[in-house]
Amino acid sequence: MRIDVYPSLLGLEPTRLEGRTAIAIDVLRATSVIVTALANGAEAVLPALTPEEAREVAAGLPPGRFLLAGERESRLIPGFDLANSPREYTAGRVAGRVIVLTTTNGTRAIRACEPASAVLVGSFLNAGAVARAAAGEQKPVAIVCAATRGEFDLGDVAAAGAIVAGIRRGFAPGAEPELNDLARAAHDLFDLHRKRLGELLAGTRHGGGLERLGLGGDLPRCAALDSRPVVPWYRQGRITLVP
Amino acid sequence: MRIDVYPSLLGLEPTRLEGRTAIAIDVLRATSVIVTALANGAEAVLPALTPEEAREVAAGLPPGRFLLAGERESRLIPGFDLANSPREYTAGRVAGRVIVLTTTNGTRAIRACEPASAVLVGSFLNAGAVARAAAGEQKPVAIVCAATRGEFDLGDVAAAGAIVAGIRRGFAPGAEPELNDLARAAHDLFDLHRKRLGELLAGTRHGGGLERLGLGGDLPRCAALDSRPVVPWYRQGRITLVP
Repeated sequence: MRIDVYPSLLGLEPTRLEGRTAIAIDVLRATSVIVTALANGAEAVLPALTPEEAREVAAGLPPGRFLLAGERESRLIPGFDLANSPREYTAGRVAGRVIVLTTTNGTRAIRACEPASAVLVGSFLNAGAVARAAAGEQKPVAIVCAATRGEFDLGDVAAAGAIVAGIRRGFAPGAEPELNDLARAAHDLFDLHRKRLGELLAGTRHGGGLERLGLGGDLPRCAALDSRPVVPWYRQGRITLVP
Repeated sequence: MRIDVYPSLLGLEPTRLEGRTAIAIDVLRATSVIVTALANGAEAVLPALTPEEAREVAAGLPPGRFLLAGERESRLIPGFDLANSPREYTAGRVAGRVIVLTTTNGTRAIRACEPASAVLVGSFLNAGAVARAAAGEQKPVAIVCAATRGEFDLGDVAAAGAIVAGIRRGFAPGAEPELNDLARAAHDLFDLHRKRLGELLAGTRHGGGLERLGLGGDLPRCAALDSRPVVPWYRQGRITLVP
């Protein structure tokens, strides 16, 4: 078994995902939002690349069943029901609903994983659960960080490290998966910061930007390790808890 | 002051280097070779993008004054004098000579730094010296990892971390440079592995590949922290110890 972590979509050729289990991560905040929404009873999340695509997808759904959600420049999109803060995705708001979601980096990363044989959605909130599910697939694993406009994102990489650590725990010493350089570094960085993941996020460029927008309250919600042990699977345009 | 570390040339727009001090790093092995050659008395190193370009550059130099050097697939280029192992660049071989060097990733990274206001060549061997020189330039710093064919390289990033650590040491607590996410991670990774940099390199994908080619003896030579405290400057096609 091998585990490769990729820092962003830059230079990631789709063929490298074929035959592998892909895990898409956008800690701040798309994949944390998706995990929260599904844990709170949303029926499905449909990732869209653009607000226009989100509106088109929603137009094909029964009225009252869906919510339009996402962000641009970290803010609510005009006319949408929800922005991209996990705090908005309460059971009261999302249970039984289909969420059509478009974000700047995260939904793009999930869609880019389509060539993989299975696609999971990871975050700190469900790192252990996703690690177990990925190990169960018994295929090489590719962890794809959404990053922020192509720049290395320490939150995403540390969450990748949490998943690497979780997968490795299932193997006997000496029979551990082979790691690429970033998977090794990610595991190291997660181990180093695991006791203070909220601070880690606050110190990142993206986390600092959210704090300056008054969205700092999202950071502890996105840092709560293994607090939502669900496994979201992406297939044919839909993310659900059904493998 | 700010310090940004970039994992590779992928997505690095030349305009981001303007007005900055750039430091190019290719620990395995181009920048370790350049530092070794200049510390051992080479007059200059001329980085070329291709073997053809190297031969053209050499054709304009006085016979007997230059050596043709570099690698493709980690091996000697047919007809060249030296490959890319620091062990070859002894004083007896290189003192007083001009080295025309072409490597797969490293010389490309140095040339890509041309838009910067100053370009330094960094490695573990001269991390502290380069950090002091960069701090003295009093401009924002961009540390550019050569990487291996665009993939995150833990050796390059840890050496970047050694330089970040060195620059930060010169600042009072609270007045420290602002770091991008990868500069923070690099500093963490260097601190974590600083006592066993040779092992760190042996565990990287690139280091393992060199060991399989019988070139494992290069790894301790490339891991010897601050063993060659020289500062190579790249300007107008030439790398020398003259600022």
